[in-house]
Amino acid sequence: MAVYTQPVQTLIDELGRMPGVGPKSAQRIAFHLLKIPADDVARLALSITDAKARVRFCTRCWNFAEGELCPICLDDRRDSTVLCVVEESRDIISIEKTGEFTGRYHVLLGAMNPLDGVGPEQLKMKELFARIEPEDVQEVILCTNPNTEGEVTAMYIARMMKPFGVKVTRIASGLPVGGDLEYADELTLGRALEGRRELHG
Amino acid sequence: MAVYTQPVQTLIDELGRMPGVGPKSAQRIAFHLLKIPADDVARLALSITDAKARVRFCTRCWNFAEGELCPICLDDRRDSTVLCVVEESRDIISIEKTGEFTGRYHVLLGAMNPLDGVGPEQLKMKELFARIEPEDVQEVILCTNPNTEGEVTAMYIARMMKPFGVKVTRIASGLPVGGDLEYADELTLGRALEGRRELHG
Repeated sequence: MAVYTQPVQTLIDELGRMPGVGPKSAQRIAFHLLKIPADDVARLALSITDAKARVRFCTRCWNFAEGELCPICLDDRRDSTVLCVVEESRDIISIEKTGEFTGRYHVLLGAMNPLDGVGPEQLKMKELFARIEPEDVQEVILCTNPNTEGEVTAMYIARMMKPFGVKVTRIASGLPVGGDLEYADELTLGRALEGRRELHG
Repeated sequence: MAVYTQPVQTLIDELGRMPGVGPKSAQRIAFHLLKIPADDVARLALSITDAKARVRFCTRCWNFAEGELCPICLDDRRDSTVLCVVEESRDIISIEKTGEFTGRYHVLLGAMNPLDGVGPEQLKMKELFARIEPEDVQEVILCTNPNTEGEVTAMYIARMMKPFGVKVTRIASGLPVGGDLEYADELTLGRALEGRRELHG
């Protein structure tokens, strides 16, 4: 016997397909699952099939939704003239937590990455442009990540947005609040300097 | 909306219970599962329930088994007089890969860890001692990990084994083959010196 009995090996293989789960972790998780009570394992398996069966994407903004539209698109109090473009649904959670934004979102479901073959066609880009006029959008806030992929994506959208004549803004890059100049990397520090704002004391 | 729709949150919570999967990884895995084809997700869920339903522990050595006994215990060619004691089934795989061992195994399903409340009663210790006479075991090789828990467990077994009058051995600690003295930690180097063997040139 050089490998595990087949159901164990299959389980390890399947777990190993999850992002960020290497062979060692897959093995550890499999062993854990085989040791704990069957009820707990059933609950995990059910949560997977249940989420997959019930959750789909909002047909307007591509956030997670249980019905046709997500809770934010269903909420009349949200300002439809300001649209915040994010890469993933999880970014919506982060922005909602700030309590600073009352507009709507558009989830691209990724960022442009030519090396990985992810271009505008692989993202919800057409769907974004199609929203501008019907929803009377006045400002598009580009909240893609401040890394290469996110910047490229933001640049692309800004360029494509020109004909629409709407205001396009990008979230600020700079030092984290409570951070320390000493520990800031030079790129971030450079951006922080570039984005400096006048103080009226 | 400050959190995800309920099935997504439940999925993240359940994934986060897996060992080594923190909240961020759980989120990433959940998002991944919601994006990939439903068939792939169904396969993952099935592998979990299937393994849990079909895999049990060998009633003799506590290795994984699909029936009463594991493939190693079922194999007549294995020498029942040499018993290798390991913490987990995965250790059996590692040892089998060396091709150096033809005896049988005993899986403790863990190691002693008084701080975590894991004593001999929480492990398959009684079951180990009960095998010695009926299986006519002549040598017990202690292959628990060379860390604190594994050492404590090995010491305990060695002491409990005295009345049986069988040979009890411990795997060697030392420098890894192909390793470099410069990078060895002092504990390992100390053990390597202590376990030095005479060379007959």
